[in-house]
Amino acid sequence: MTNEQPKLKRYKCVVAYDGTNYAGFQMQENAYTIQEAIERSLHHIHKEPVKIYASGRTDSGVHARGQVFHFDSKLDIPNQKWTRAINSGLKPDIRILDTVEVHSGFHSRFDVQKKEYRYFIQQGRVVDPFRRLYSFHVPLKLDLTLMEEAAKYFIGEHDFTAFSSIKSVKENKVRTLYQLELASNEDEIMVTCTGSGFLHSMVRIIVGTLVQVGQGKISAEQIVEAIRKKDRTLAGTTAPAQGLFLWQVSYKQNR
Amino acid sequence: MTNEQPKLKRYKCVVAYDGTNYAGFQMQENAYTIQEAIERSLHHIHKEPVKIYASGRTDSGVHARGQVFHFDSKLDIPNQKWTRAINSGLKPDIRILDTVEVHSGFHSRFDVQKKEYRYFIQQGRVVDPFRRLYSFHVPLKLDLTLMEEAAKYFIGEHDFTAFSSIKSVKENKVRTLYQLELASNEDEIMVTCTGSGFLHSMVRIIVGTLVQVGQGKISAEQIVEAIRKKDRTLAGTTAPAQGLFLWQVSYKQNR
Repeated sequence: MTNEQPKLKRYKCVVAYDGTNYAGFQMQENAYTIQEAIERSLHHIHKEPVKIYASGRTDSGVHARGQVFHFDSKLDIPNQKWTRAINSGLKPDIRILDTVEVHSGFHSRFDVQKKEYRYFIQQGRVVDPFRRLYSFHVPLKLDLTLMEEAAKYFIGEHDFTAFSSIKSVKENKVRTLYQLELASNEDEIMVTCTGSGFLHSMVRIIVGTLVQVGQGKISAEQIVEAIRKKDRTLAGTTAPAQGLFLWQVSYKQNR
Repeated sequence: MTNEQPKLKRYKCVVAYDGTNYAGFQMQENAYTIQEAIERSLHHIHKEPVKIYASGRTDSGVHARGQVFHFDSKLDIPNQKWTRAINSGLKPDIRILDTVEVHSGFHSRFDVQKKEYRYFIQQGRVVDPFRRLYSFHVPLKLDLTLMEEAAKYFIGEHDFTAFSSIKSVKENKVRTLYQLELASNEDEIMVTCTGSGFLHSMVRIIVGTLVQVGQGKISAEQIVEAIRKKDRTLAGTTAPAQGLFLWQVSYKQNR
């Protein structure tokens, strides 16, 4: 009976986290996750358990600049005070950036319009100690032109079976990639990847493939073939978790 | 007798480190330091203890982009192979960036011409999880104009007693500051400080004072008075270690 809790309000939070010390986003046994840390803080505020619903999970070691989740609360607290209250129960490697009250029909996962990921590659002989936890160190110089050329073949609607983990349980592996762009600056390459949704490890396998393209080990033609044959073995290796950031999640209008 | 080891060569290394997990640079009992980590790696290479001599110490939690040290070795290894060999015995939060053989009279501390430190301040309501270990979070907006005006009073040769830790044991507290500049960009203020040499906590007390100037709590006149009276109580608080980076050490010509 929905009438039993007439005063429930739904809040949408944007959260940034350094994933280094967490076993990914989603709750699991015997490992401490981002979700658990946030739910503990909400539990403390409410004196009872409160569940959060995120736009999607992130793997162990993956970071977020703009992950989104929602939760329902019977507490009537102004938006900005929510941010402060939840943060006060969190270590500084997880920070709520913003909280807004949303329509009760809003859902942080089902209403996603697009997601933006960014992946950082550090070039140069020696790993930079300050980026060791936030980028993928590739000592040998990558051929950016080859990588940019290859990136074009990922754009659009495709069955991304070849570019998803065999652990991926989703039946429909068709996704639309809106953007796959490379920007370089001194010794860093930033890969920006925007899409309607992503399969398990999809961004990391796309980046791993692009890196092997930049090393001359995989051709653009092989990418086309991997997509067409849905053959994971034709795609490249999975780039490491620590270079990946869930950068931004966008929602349908009025959501 | 110097003839006993006629083949000793002196090597100068530039090293970067994330100071988060170390009790500062200098060897001490019951705490793991940067020096100890590097000497362990050199010990492993030489099968006997090798001592290193740095340009100066850095405190617990302070970082370095370009710390310099030297050591003597009877091993004849090309410069670039030294870098690789020492790094192979270090965790990735400490990285040798460069090794060169130097004149046997070179000394990484006594031959310093100038040192550059940089200090990072993060502005904005919420601490950025990715800068929590690498900057000082000051939520309230600082008045940059006031800070830039005040910075000028530090430039030149002064007795910096008021701007050094009472733990500082050096007798002569006269130092020359060549540069104290602020640069801001989005939500970050970078303070660049170059000088002939620095007393214990000197950069952190100068920055702590500048922050209080930016909050309207300390006037430029008070800085002049603190310097003149050599009075630590007139200077500001010590800014936290994690915002500070030893950025670069320069040596006299041909050194």
